[in-house]
Amino acid sequence: MKYRISENVIRRLPRYIRQLDVLNAAGVEKVSSGELSLQMGLTASQIRQDLNCFGGFGQQGYGYNIIQLREGIANALGMNKILSAVVIGAGNFGRALIANFKFDECGAELVAAFDVSPEIVGTSISGTPVYHADGLEKYLTENHVDVAVLTLPQSEADAMAELLTKCGVKGIWNFTGMDLDFNDEGTVVENVHLSDSFITMGYYLRCTDEKEAK
Amino acid sequence: MKYRISENVIRRLPRYIRQLDVLNAAGVEKVSSGELSLQMGLTASQIRQDLNCFGGFGQQGYGYNIIQLREGIANALGMNKILSAVVIGAGNFGRALIANFKFDECGAELVAAFDVSPEIVGTSISGTPVYHADGLEKYLTENHVDVAVLTLPQSEADAMAELLTKCGVKGIWNFTGMDLDFNDEGTVVENVHLSDSFITMGYYLRCTDEKEAK
Repeated sequence: MKYRISENVIRRLPRYIRQLDVLNAAGVEKVSSGELSLQMGLTASQIRQDLNCFGGFGQQGYGYNIIQLREGIANALGMNKILSAVVIGAGNFGRALIANFKFDECGAELVAAFDVSPEIVGTSISGTPVYHADGLEKYLTENHVDVAVLTLPQSEADAMAELLTKCGVKGIWNFTGMDLDFNDEGTVVENVHLSDSFITMGYYLRCTDEKEAK
Repeated sequence: MKYRISENVIRRLPRYIRQLDVLNAAGVEKVSSGELSLQMGLTASQIRQDLNCFGGFGQQGYGYNIIQLREGIANALGMNKILSAVVIGAGNFGRALIANFKFDECGAELVAAFDVSPEIVGTSISGTPVYHADGLEKYLTENHVDVAVLTLPQSEADAMAELLTKCGVKGIWNFTGMDLDFNDEGTVVENVHLSDSFITMGYYLRCTDEKEAK
């Protein structure tokens, strides 16, 4: 499968969006690649290269118009096309995402959650209805769903991913801790491993400690 | 600040640990770089290079002993030195981490949580006591804490990070959605932006859709 922009650039674009939102909220209207460079810890030439990948919205010597640049990046990422999403598994972590994750700011709409626990099924969490997982397959045939957020136990991840793929769900945001690889079947899987992030931080922290102990 | 191993390698090492744990749980004793290559989607030469960075535990033609390799990587990452951690903010997301995140498998021990809500303070979540945030500074002077997990509102992130740095906490695992940069002061910050991950997935998903529509 071929994409138009390299993965490294794609993974940096959401960072630009965040930084532009910070600047916009502070009332700033224009920003130069040099200023973004200092704020984001990237080189100015890196920034110009990244933004040139999808056209470029800067005027030499004037900097980028923040609102236009933000819109340009969001469009390049396709965020203007809203994705419908469901959360599967409304335990602690699922509940936290349902209640706190800003799906709308990420170009998506959360439409439903699924679980098996009798205490949760039939309730709603921050306005999102929680249905019984037994009804998931039927729901997916009757409603268009682009993305499933997997926050169920690891042991159920594989079977669930197969069901989702069969029912035409094209994106899986996978928090189960088990890598899923369905890319060959046209399903996009984003595996999130919080442990990797913690372990990496721990490494750098211990390096710092050792350095100070010397 | 100089580290011994490049960041790209460091960020891959936890993935090796996960894959080795999967193999170990399946009763496998040895694995070759070629097999790991297929399982992990990295080239065999990349894998050999990565593992050579900190010595290398393979025997030509025999593959790596899984338990030894796992231990070698964990030691290279310093995971044998247990870090003590606190969670600050026991709302939805904090609770989810306290209840579900396996701190022990990441070389850490969760010792306490802090919040301000009267309904939560004084309780315990999965065995972790929740104290009032007013007592945090005192707690940190009386107890050695390596890592603070920040799951409080964004507006309080900066002030909290300053307090933590002042009190000698050397690592911040930051889920507030606001980038914190205290690296110059010797504090290691790992900013986690789940939105970046979602947006990236959304991009690839929309690319797939467009391709199929053609």
